[in-house]
Amino acid sequence: MVSELLKELFPHTGRAFVIGVTGSSGTGKSTLVDQLARHDKSLGRKVGIIAVDPTSPFSGGAILGDRIRMQSLFTDPNVFIRSMATRGQMGGLSRAVNEALLVLDAAGYETLMVETVGVGQDEVDIAKTAHLTLVILVPGMGDAIQTIKAGIMEIGDIFVINKADRPEVFRTEQELEALLSIASREDGWNPLIVKTVATRGEGIKELADAIERYRAFLSDPRRAKRRGVSFFRERLVEMLRDRLIQKVLKQIPEGELDRYAEKIMTRELDPYTIMDRLLRDLGLEEETHD
Amino acid sequence: MVSELLKELFPHTGRAFVIGVTGSSGTGKSTLVDQLARHDKSLGRKVGIIAVDPTSPFSGGAILGDRIRMQSLFTDPNVFIRSMATRGQMGGLSRAVNEALLVLDAAGYETLMVETVGVGQDEVDIAKTAHLTLVILVPGMGDAIQTIKAGIMEIGDIFVINKADRPEVFRTEQELEALLSIASREDGWNPLIVKTVATRGEGIKELADAIERYRAFLSDPRRAKRRGVSFFRERLVEMLRDRLIQKVLKQIPEGELDRYAEKIMTRELDPYTIMDRLLRDLGLEEETHD
Repeated sequence: MVSELLKELFPHTGRAFVIGVTGSSGTGKSTLVDQLARHDKSLGRKVGIIAVDPTSPFSGGAILGDRIRMQSLFTDPNVFIRSMATRGQMGGLSRAVNEALLVLDAAGYETLMVETVGVGQDEVDIAKTAHLTLVILVPGMGDAIQTIKAGIMEIGDIFVINKADRPEVFRTEQELEALLSIASREDGWNPLIVKTVATRGEGIKELADAIERYRAFLSDPRRAKRRGVSFFRERLVEMLRDRLIQKVLKQIPEGELDRYAEKIMTRELDPYTIMDRLLRDLGLEEETHD
Repeated sequence: MVSELLKELFPHTGRAFVIGVTGSSGTGKSTLVDQLARHDKSLGRKVGIIAVDPTSPFSGGAILGDRIRMQSLFTDPNVFIRSMATRGQMGGLSRAVNEALLVLDAAGYETLMVETVGVGQDEVDIAKTAHLTLVILVPGMGDAIQTIKAGIMEIGDIFVINKADRPEVFRTEQELEALLSIASREDGWNPLIVKTVATRGEGIKELADAIERYRAFLSDPRRAKRRGVSFFRERLVEMLRDRLIQKVLKQIPEGELDRYAEKIMTRELDPYTIMDRLLRDLGLEEETHD
């Protein structure tokens, strides 16, 4: 059982610092992660990188093009790089990533980076797992507004404007500053903006400094405790949700849900009445409201 | 209780045809929906439109700019338009949309369109609810590839290339055709590609015809039954999952999850051991593996 292994590893975890890195494709995310990994390696840290590659629903394979850029790091024993494919099971992704992070943490990797493409529930889930989330933008293309629309703004602790040698960089920075100025985070952190040109290594030192500032911010004991408690409480609720439905589905006789679904189709029964019956049959009676 | 109302409405539902419309912002999605609504109205059908507006996490309000274009339809009694904001509760969105669809269905709306922005779990969930999903692209900007990367290709029954008066339209169409040609859908449907210029009403008739073709395809009784059973079975499982966790969370003493979360933080206990304890305390003992 996987959980037996994780149970044994668990006491050895809790030392890694997890950085979520998100941004649309074409923002140079992988090059940036590559540069950050080199920087941390130069400080003597072991670095783990998990790249969440959306699976093509047609080929069944992940789109791994970006990984090629990291070739030089691939052979380094202090840098672990692994792509994880979503395989359409969007919901299960954050669990799989969490488990991989636990294993790497227990193995002594000190900086863990999780790269995700796009903006959706996955990114929000992964941001909850990470200690720090970097949101990567590029100048122009209305990225700032797109990002807001997708609701990803609230998960960014540091915003990176990569490809900052492009002409529209100032406008993008101004837009972003304006958006951030109207925000107020509950934890009191003011998200930082860092400009980089990852392909030339420009701004990486500044980005690493920004990351250290956020680490220092997070290390405040009360803040660390509040974050940890709310994080693990949420994980417990998630795990409980999964275990409950798994247990209960095993108790429902084979074919019963299909028979109920047919009765819904014909409008013989409605889903709410069926739900009450199912809970009653499972001995999880609902209070009656008569 | 909401479910009591839905229970009474349910027998009156099942007649509406639900179309999910998805695509990034800037693809002209709302204009297209507007045109389709006019077309269906001209056939004497009552049309309902639900626009899922991502909420800005800063302002707390939905971004309703697009809705302004539909002003002329707003005053029409045969067209119902409502924006629903995500308010960050991404998981609960599909349930809220489902309930709104049931109500409109019971009220006699024959065509229901659900507009969503972006590509994520929400879109996939809403696609499961819809009978048909339109994916809107625009020429250029690497949209086709972006779309694939985001895994949205598999949910599209009809692909619309809007703004088809742009020069890159042929390349986008070729890319899309190439992608679709390597796909094989289990249900035997070959996704259609339709080009439109929604602002001028061009291609709307062709799009409406494509929709009718898919409706005819779906109306095959065996196919309809298979789809309906799997759809309602999944909804039952979802509802059961929600009800179970709600019931169980009520049974857990106040503060207990926080206390467990603290023990995880200090690595005094691991989440897997706690899960076993919680299930035991709830009388939902797991089989032991000793």
